[in-house]
Amino acid sequence: MSRLVIIGGSDAGISAALRAKEIEPKIDITVIVADKFPNYSICGLPFYISSEVPDWKKLAHRTVEDIEKQDIRLLLEHRTQTIDPKSKIVSVKDNKGKIFSLKYDKLIIATGAVSARPQITGLDLPGVFLLRWMEDGFLLKSYLDEKKPERAIIIGGGYIGMEMADAFKLRGIDATVIEYFDTLLTTMDPEIGKRVEETLARHGVKAVTKTAVNSIEEKGNCLRVFGSNGFQAEAEVILVASGVRPNVDLALSAGVSLGDFGAIKVNRKMETNIADIYATGDCVETWHRLLQKYVYMPLGSTAHKQGRAAGQNAAGGNAEFQGSLGTQAVKIFDVVAARTGLRDVEANTAGFDPLTIEYEDWDHKVYYPGARRLILRLTGDKRTGRLLGLQMIGPYGAEISKRVDIIAAAISSGMQVNEIGALDLTYTPPLSSPWDPLQSVCQAWMKYFPQKGKFPKVDS
Amino acid sequence: MSRLVIIGGSDAGISAALRAKEIEPKIDITVIVADKFPNYSICGLPFYISSEVPDWKKLAHRTVEDIEKQDIRLLLEHRTQTIDPKSKIVSVKDNKGKIFSLKYDKLIIATGAVSARPQITGLDLPGVFLLRWMEDGFLLKSYLDEKKPERAIIIGGGYIGMEMADAFKLRGIDATVIEYFDTLLTTMDPEIGKRVEETLARHGVKAVTKTAVNSIEEKGNCLRVFGSNGFQAEAEVILVASGVRPNVDLALSAGVSLGDFGAIKVNRKMETNIADIYATGDCVETWHRLLQKYVYMPLGSTAHKQGRAAGQNAAGGNAEFQGSLGTQAVKIFDVVAARTGLRDVEANTAGFDPLTIEYEDWDHKVYYPGARRLILRLTGDKRTGRLLGLQMIGPYGAEISKRVDIIAAAISSGMQVNEIGALDLTYTPPLSSPWDPLQSVCQAWMKYFPQKGKFPKVDS
Repeated sequence: MSRLVIIGGSDAGISAALRAKEIEPKIDITVIVADKFPNYSICGLPFYISSEVPDWKKLAHRTVEDIEKQDIRLLLEHRTQTIDPKSKIVSVKDNKGKIFSLKYDKLIIATGAVSARPQITGLDLPGVFLLRWMEDGFLLKSYLDEKKPERAIIIGGGYIGMEMADAFKLRGIDATVIEYFDTLLTTMDPEIGKRVEETLARHGVKAVTKTAVNSIEEKGNCLRVFGSNGFQAEAEVILVASGVRPNVDLALSAGVSLGDFGAIKVNRKMETNIADIYATGDCVETWHRLLQKYVYMPLGSTAHKQGRAAGQNAAGGNAEFQGSLGTQAVKIFDVVAARTGLRDVEANTAGFDPLTIEYEDWDHKVYYPGARRLILRLTGDKRTGRLLGLQMIGPYGAEISKRVDIIAAAISSGMQVNEIGALDLTYTPPLSSPWDPLQSVCQAWMKYFPQKGKFPKVDS
Repeated sequence: MSRLVIIGGSDAGISAALRAKEIEPKIDITVIVADKFPNYSICGLPFYISSEVPDWKKLAHRTVEDIEKQDIRLLLEHRTQTIDPKSKIVSVKDNKGKIFSLKYDKLIIATGAVSARPQITGLDLPGVFLLRWMEDGFLLKSYLDEKKPERAIIIGGGYIGMEMADAFKLRGIDATVIEYFDTLLTTMDPEIGKRVEETLARHGVKAVTKTAVNSIEEKGNCLRVFGSNGFQAEAEVILVASGVRPNVDLALSAGVSLGDFGAIKVNRKMETNIADIYATGDCVETWHRLLQKYVYMPLGSTAHKQGRAAGQNAAGGNAEFQGSLGTQAVKIFDVVAARTGLRDVEANTAGFDPLTIEYEDWDHKVYYPGARRLILRLTGDKRTGRLLGLQMIGPYGAEISKRVDIIAAAISSGMQVNEIGALDLTYTPPLSSPWDPLQSVCQAWMKYFPQKGKFPKVDS
C-alpha cells in the first residue's frame, strides 16, 4: 500500500489528502498538522474577531471527524523536524516532545506562509498582534475581550488590514490604518484605493498613507507608534498586517529548490526538484495563467486548487494546476472590491500594450428599486484587443464578485474585449440591464481603442 | 447621404439606430414607431403595475429627447402600411390617417412580437388583459387602480406570469396561476418548476397545473374561468400570459421569407432574403450559439444585440450576431431562477448525450452570517465532457444570475465541465467559498461521469 505523507493541514494539505483518497481509496495518508486546527478557514478569522462568527469551531471547512472518516490519519500538534529524500523518511516531533520516523512513498509539502514581520522595533510588546493562524486569532480575541481597548492601529492597508478595520469598528473600537504606499489596497489601482479610503472614512476609520512605521513603544497604559515624517499615534492594541512570506525552511533543509520569489519552485504538476516530493499552497510559487510564468501569490482559493492537483498526482493521477489570474475579492464594511487578471501597470511590465478605462454603471435597471452604482476599471491589450483584467468596486450585494468572475472565465479562454458584448448574459430588471455593466464597459473600451482596424473584421 | 429606415422603435429598432449612427455619423435615420413609447423597457411593466416603479416614464431606456439628440428622426404613432423592395419605398400612415412614402437605401424590420391569444372564448371581455406593450400596461394599471379587484387569475405560468403573480400580491390582490403543463416555468426543469410553485405557495399564490383554460364568462361582478377536468375559478381581473408570437405580417407581405418557427429568417448578419432589408429582434429567428442552428427565442437582451448588429451592417459595417444561449433570469418574490445553455431534454433532442445532476450548496461560507442555499442543475455531454447548461434557483441577492453568466461565458468558449474547477474565481467568506458552488457542482458531475477515461488525460 502506497504511503502518502503530507506536511501541513491547512487548505492545501487537506485538499491534497481528500483528492488523493478520491483518486486512490487504498492509499495510506498521514497529515502532519502543527496545531490542533486542520482545515480551518483562516480567511474567516477577521469575522471571528469581530464576533460575526461567535463560535470559532464554525470556521472549520470540515471537522477532524469528517476528515478521519475519509480514512485520513491526522497527527495534530506534531512538527516535522527533517525530511530525508534518500531514505524517504520524515522525522516528526509529537506534542510531548517525542520524536519518531515516518516512511513515505510520496511526500507533499504544504507548510503554507507565515506573517511577515516588518522592520519595526517593539513588535514583541504586549498588545501587538499578528493574524495568520487560529492561535493568533485566539490571542487577539482574548485580548480584546479582556482588555476592552478603545483604540486600534492597523499596520498595513491590504486585504486583512481592511477586514480588520471593519472588525474593530464592529466591536466599537476606534481604528486607524497606516499604509506605506500612497493608497490603500495596493493590489488594485490607486483609483480603487482612494474609494476604499472614502469607505473607511465614511465608517469612521482613519487611513494614514505614505507612512512607514519605525517603532512601537509602551507609554503608560497604551502603545505609541512612531513613523516617518514625525508621525505618531497611540492605541491600546496594534495589529501588524504586512503580508506573508512562504514557510520554506523545512523544504530548504531537504534540498528542495526555491524560485525567484523565495517560495518553493514547482512545475504545474506541483512536483519539486526532488523525486516524489510535491509542494503546494502558500509555500509555493504559482503559475499565472495569463502571464504564463510563475509568481508568488498566496491565496486560499489557489491553495485548494494546487492541493487538489498535488493530491491527485501523488495518488497516481495526472493533474496540472491550470494557473491563477490573481482573482481576489474583499468586503470592506458595505463595499466590495474585486479584481481579476492584470492591471495596467502589471500588463505593461509583462510586455503587453495595455489600455485601462474607468466606467460607471448601475448594477440593475435604475427604475427598479435599489439600483446601485458600480465602478469598473477594464484593461485590454491595444495590440491584439485581448481582454487582460477587470477591477470593480461598489456596494455589497451588487453581484460584483461574480461579475468579476465572468471576466475571469473569459480571460481564461483568451477572449477579446469585443467578445464580451456578444455573450448571452442573464437580464431581468431587478438584477441587470439588457447590456450588463461588463458589456457596457467593454463597448466603451472599444470606443477608446485607437487601432480599431487591427481587430478581426467581423465585430460583435 | 444614405437613408436608413427602421420599422419598430422598441429595443431592437433603437439599438440598431444608435449603432448605425455610431458607425456612420452621416447616415440619415428614420424610425417608425407604432406607439408613443420608443425604447421603453417593456420588461419593466410588471414592476410598474406592482407600483414598485411609480412613474411609467422611468421605464424608458432613453427619452425621446435622448434619441433625437443623436440625430435620429422618430415618427411616433406612425404605422407602416407596405414595403416595396423594388422601388425601396415604405408607405407610412401617421396618427391622423395621412399616408406618405419614405424612400430607403437600407431597411431594418424590427416589428417585435405580439401577445399570443390562446384558443379561449371570452378573451375580449372587460377585465381580461394581455401584457406586452406600454398601452397594455396602462390599461391594466388603470383597471386595478379604479376597480380595486380582490382576486386575479393569471393564465400561463411563464416568466411574465410569475412576475405578475408577484405584482398582484404586492398590490394586495389574491392571485391564482393556471398552467397547462405539469409544472410552472417550463423553460426550466420540472425540479425547478416545483420550487417555483413552493415559492408562490409561500407567498400565498395558488398554482393550478395540468389545466387547460377553455373559456371565460362574465358572472355578476366577476369573471369565471372554465378549464379542463371541470376546473372553475372566479376573479375580478384576468391576465392572459401565454407567450408571444413574432409580428411578421408586414414582412410577409413584402416577400420576406420566414423560417421554420414562423419568424423572419435572417442570417447572422441579420440580412433577410431581400437585398438591403434586415430584420432584428423578437420578429426574427435567433442563432443559437450551442445548437448552431436557428430557434425562436424572443428576449430583450438578444434584441439589443441583434439590433446592434443590424444597425452596424446597415451603416456599412460588418457585424455578426454571435448567438443566444437561451440565458434567462427571473425574480419571483424573494427567489431568483436563472438558466443558460441546454437542459437535459433539449440537449437530448439536439443529439448530445447529456447527463444532468442536481446539487445544493451555500452561496458563501456558511459561518459568515446570511448564507443562503442554492440549487444547481448542471448539464454536460457524456461523450465529450462538454459543458452544456446550468439552471439555478435560490434567494434574491445570492449572486445567482451572475453565477449563471460565468457558465454562459464558459459555454461560449466551448469549455468542458472539468475546466470550471480550474477557473480562478473570487473568494472571500462573505461572498463565496474557496470552491465556488459552480466549481463544486462541476466536480460532482465529474464523479457521476461514467466514461471518465475518455477525457483528455490531464485533469484540473
